[in-house]
Amino acid sequence: MRDTLLALAHFPKDKLDKVDTEAFLIAAKKCRGWVLTMTTAANSGHPGGSMSSMEMYLVTYAVSNLRRERVEETDRDYVVISHGHTAPAAYSALAYLGFFDPLELLGNFRRTGSPFQGHVERSVPGIDWGSGNLGQGLAAGVGYALAQKKRRGEGHVFVLMGDGEQTKGQVSEARRIAAKEGLDNVTALVDFNHIQISGFVEDVMPVQYKRLWEIDGWQVYECDGHDPSDIYSALKEAYEDDGPSVVFCNTVMGKGVSFMEGIPDYHGKALNKEQYLRAMEELGEDPSILEEALRARRGPLPEGRRVSVSAPPIQTGHPFTYSRETKTDNRSAFGKALANIGELNYKEGSSSTPILVFDCDLASSVKVDEFADKCPEWFVETGIQEHATATVSGAASCGGVIALWADFGVFGLTEVYNQQRLNDINKTNLKLFLTHVGLDVGEDGMTHQCIDYCGLLRNLFGWKLTVPIDPNQTDRITRWALSEAGNICVAMGRSKVPILTREGEDTPFYGENYVFRYGAIDLIRDGRHASVFAMGHMVYRAVQARELLEKHGLSLRVYGVSCPLSIDEKAIEEAAELGPIFTFEDHHAGTGLGREIVSKVQSLGLHCRVKPLGVWRYGDSGPFDEVFEAMGLSSKALAECVLKELEK
Amino acid sequence: MRDTLLALAHFPKDKLDKVDTEAFLIAAKKCRGWVLTMTTAANSGHPGGSMSSMEMYLVTYAVSNLRRERVEETDRDYVVISHGHTAPAAYSALAYLGFFDPLELLGNFRRTGSPFQGHVERSVPGIDWGSGNLGQGLAAGVGYALAQKKRRGEGHVFVLMGDGEQTKGQVSEARRIAAKEGLDNVTALVDFNHIQISGFVEDVMPVQYKRLWEIDGWQVYECDGHDPSDIYSALKEAYEDDGPSVVFCNTVMGKGVSFMEGIPDYHGKALNKEQYLRAMEELGEDPSILEEALRARRGPLPEGRRVSVSAPPIQTGHPFTYSRETKTDNRSAFGKALANIGELNYKEGSSSTPILVFDCDLASSVKVDEFADKCPEWFVETGIQEHATATVSGAASCGGVIALWADFGVFGLTEVYNQQRLNDINKTNLKLFLTHVGLDVGEDGMTHQCIDYCGLLRNLFGWKLTVPIDPNQTDRITRWALSEAGNICVAMGRSKVPILTREGEDTPFYGENYVFRYGAIDLIRDGRHASVFAMGHMVYRAVQARELLEKHGLSLRVYGVSCPLSIDEKAIEEAAELGPIFTFEDHHAGTGLGREIVSKVQSLGLHCRVKPLGVWRYGDSGPFDEVFEAMGLSSKALAECVLKELEK
Repeated sequence: MRDTLLALAHFPKDKLDKVDTEAFLIAAKKCRGWVLTMTTAANSGHPGGSMSSMEMYLVTYAVSNLRRERVEETDRDYVVISHGHTAPAAYSALAYLGFFDPLELLGNFRRTGSPFQGHVERSVPGIDWGSGNLGQGLAAGVGYALAQKKRRGEGHVFVLMGDGEQTKGQVSEARRIAAKEGLDNVTALVDFNHIQISGFVEDVMPVQYKRLWEIDGWQVYECDGHDPSDIYSALKEAYEDDGPSVVFCNTVMGKGVSFMEGIPDYHGKALNKEQYLRAMEELGEDPSILEEALRARRGPLPEGRRVSVSAPPIQTGHPFTYSRETKTDNRSAFGKALANIGELNYKEGSSSTPILVFDCDLASSVKVDEFADKCPEWFVETGIQEHATATVSGAASCGGVIALWADFGVFGLTEVYNQQRLNDINKTNLKLFLTHVGLDVGEDGMTHQCIDYCGLLRNLFGWKLTVPIDPNQTDRITRWALSEAGNICVAMGRSKVPILTREGEDTPFYGENYVFRYGAIDLIRDGRHASVFAMGHMVYRAVQARELLEKHGLSLRVYGVSCPLSIDEKAIEEAAELGPIFTFEDHHAGTGLGREIVSKVQSLGLHCRVKPLGVWRYGDSGPFDEVFEAMGLSSKALAECVLKELEK
Repeated sequence: MRDTLLALAHFPKDKLDKVDTEAFLIAAKKCRGWVLTMTTAANSGHPGGSMSSMEMYLVTYAVSNLRRERVEETDRDYVVISHGHTAPAAYSALAYLGFFDPLELLGNFRRTGSPFQGHVERSVPGIDWGSGNLGQGLAAGVGYALAQKKRRGEGHVFVLMGDGEQTKGQVSEARRIAAKEGLDNVTALVDFNHIQISGFVEDVMPVQYKRLWEIDGWQVYECDGHDPSDIYSALKEAYEDDGPSVVFCNTVMGKGVSFMEGIPDYHGKALNKEQYLRAMEELGEDPSILEEALRARRGPLPEGRRVSVSAPPIQTGHPFTYSRETKTDNRSAFGKALANIGELNYKEGSSSTPILVFDCDLASSVKVDEFADKCPEWFVETGIQEHATATVSGAASCGGVIALWADFGVFGLTEVYNQQRLNDINKTNLKLFLTHVGLDVGEDGMTHQCIDYCGLLRNLFGWKLTVPIDPNQTDRITRWALSEAGNICVAMGRSKVPILTREGEDTPFYGENYVFRYGAIDLIRDGRHASVFAMGHMVYRAVQARELLEKHGLSLRVYGVSCPLSIDEKAIEEAAELGPIFTFEDHHAGTGLGREIVSKVQSLGLHCRVKPLGVWRYGDSGPFDEVFEAMGLSSKALAECVLKELEK
């Protein structure tokens, strides 16, 4: 039976024959039994939508070429699930198709420590995107499809969605990106059962479902979502047509069990024992597997799939070194390094690993315009649609390309914080270059001041954050980030930053022989009376403060912190031995470097005063030096603060 | 001239006559001169879009009844600006219409410390919504319109938007809410100049602009955006028709100065002195005001409008007290209190202050269903559209109603963090009730675990955060939050929480005579060896840990923290005197209560060990007690940790 389904990859037949259809119907019945068994065993879960999506899952996995042994490959089809709460159906279909042992699933669904979480996660083989927060899956599917397209892969992407989530704005953004990029390799399926938690979709929030897809440039199909042969034919048409397509699958919530059908209550409620027995009888499935499942639930926990994140090999070139005389800003140094790397790797039509650079209508400000000129095929303009872009770029980064998104801090992180959290959960491989962070946005004012990037990423567990100190270090960090695995954020201000040199010399501090190491704190200037830990583009102001203090006979040690979320304990211990510690950042003082260092001092049991200088209110709109002064973050303000503290 | 325009409120004439049109053209020319003067004086700003929106602003402000003396009223028309970078045009129109002295504006645009920030802010009289992050304004306008509708006000809302931002998903969400709620009192105007930063809108991201509005249920009009009479007629039709309407205004970027017209470069670049002189000559305006502006720029700073936030008076009823035997959860106690307050204040068709409760398809889980039954006219179901809902509810809260939004933590805050930041900047008056926070979401797993709510709100400056300790305190906090001014977040878990009693008694701790005071820390149980600060629904586990420790002869003092962002120093000092301090929370340990207390200990110069217990990885999916155990946050885990520390 299973082999009949597995033989259907890439639509070898025009239509399903009787044998195929029969095989699907048997599979669907079996899987429905599993859906009920695992939710009843867990006493938790979403059986209603799982029952309605069942045939959609089975046909989709069958016609895709995603198979157990291909899970770790990138040249294959992808299946993205947006309505993640239908995990029981997705997991059942995968178990049926040989991705793992059904009993392992039945005994471990929603079990503490198990990979089979309540919403789909990539820890389960065959799951390409972890979801649960609705409205995000289409963008993930578009990301995978775009990656395939750009690397000239043959893979097709299927995205399964619910109907209630169609209203989410991010869905419309993702649709437009797919249409603009001409992605004929993506097919969405909507489980159109007309019921969401609060009632009928038409009452909760009326939408012209199909017309919205059409207008955004998608081909719309429709089918009976419980007829495998009808789904097959619709998917085949969608697979073969020219643009992105969506198939509306008409379904019934709770399908297959008479007393569940059309009842919203079963959206998120498992059957009790008695209901379970009745339901299994109706399905003609053996209810004794419940006992087996409950027994397995007391047994050992299964290991989940370990999602591996690797850095595709590319040439990162030879660093540019800016001399002392250079007047430039960090974002320009980033742009130059990126264009250099692009040029080295770009060969039109080649099969080398594409470096995709995403832009939301700010190319010239975030300095990816030179890259766009040099590598036009790798440049992806997604317009003012940050939510979808965050997810599209995140998913693309898992699909065999290097994905980089450059944007202002407030748009690339503040506005899309949850999308970056979901990228973290999904272990994506995104390079996020933020410009205009901190108070360093010039006159744009408080809505544009991203003073929370440390604080936001601190909530997550996998992201690495770097805040380059000068253009030379920015160049090194850019090259490092593109060849390092995992989600990496590089945060830069807007204004020009002097080239940092060694004390009393013209030699650049981050010169020819410098190699960036994540987590290192650099001793920029030694001192004898107190230390300041300055973050990123604040370092040069700290060096200026040191010069001001020299006139008072005071000697300030300056540490440069470019990795505020990974603080080197040794530097803190050394500084604590010397005297009071100051922290200096144009970030919210309650969530940035200051807090990190206070916390480290405390956990190391050190006794020294720590005085954090940072942002304590929404900032002014004006020329940047004036803004820094008004906000108490000029070099003079730091010097005065040190003076006052040392005079105590 | 000004009086001619001011006489046009609410369309007293069918069409503009020659005198009116002439008055507008003179005003537009004058204002264009001011746009160029203030941007050149500041050497910064966005002249291009300001020139193209000029007539739209003048006609809109003229036909609305928003006047200088009515700014502080709520029964009036509102004008919301979504493309906030066209501030120079909006400010000029307001100055022309008498909201403030033009010279005050010209000399203080984008000047450090001035209310005239680079993007529109409410600190300027006549500006109803601060924006700059694109795609947010329509939702704000819908919020104001909804508030008017629900309080049976006559006010009409005008929303001015750019064309580039039309792609943003939040715009489509807001459109649907307006259509569902039948808001015939909102009119949007789109400055359709076809140019965004990266080029022509049709190239950057193709969209079927008008059809999208139509399909989402809006009436679409079109006019010549530089012909005051045409704008007037289109707005009049839109004002009078039955549903929400949009007017596409065909305009030219940089309109009015030949060498600026249609040139994208002037989107965000001020003219230099020579260009300025040429432009002013073309306009026939006197360039000597530049000198005046520059002089004013060196003079005293103007005071901005102080946005006042007040709590409309409602009855908050008498608290419910739950006895020791009650088995309930905090969210249910919130739901009961809310329904009680609703019932007390709700009179169908009355003109009392409406209490609007917003829901995104989770009413029964977040326990606003009883309120919805009792106060159907005040219940607003917005579907799975969190971004727009955050802004709609925020703006509504400034429009003379009480606005409350209840949602899961990950949707009401994590997903819409930037919208809540913009609500903070806009000094809204929103009551945000989050449920399913922390690890306390049951089996839903890591995508649903909101372990960042403290950390997120810590980045903002105005939000108050409370995390109720038990159902009795939840009841008090609910009643307090609804009668307190400002943005307030109340964060609750999902599972049942025992009623906290006084030590050795059956009397509820938060009983009849308890009055909630923001910022208070409660001494729940005294102790002699160490202290634990437990947050919200973790307090009862801390009390259990105390009981476990008693068997070892150890006495743990338990402090209950319900306001983690406002820590009472006295409690910290007392605890530090006693011995080591533990913090206990099911929140990210790096951004929650632990960090707040460590920071306080450090800033007070206290020497004591602080051991933070919290979340250090994405959480498991399973029954909640098992999840807490697996994540090291059971009462037993706390007891063991204390034991180990005290044995050191």
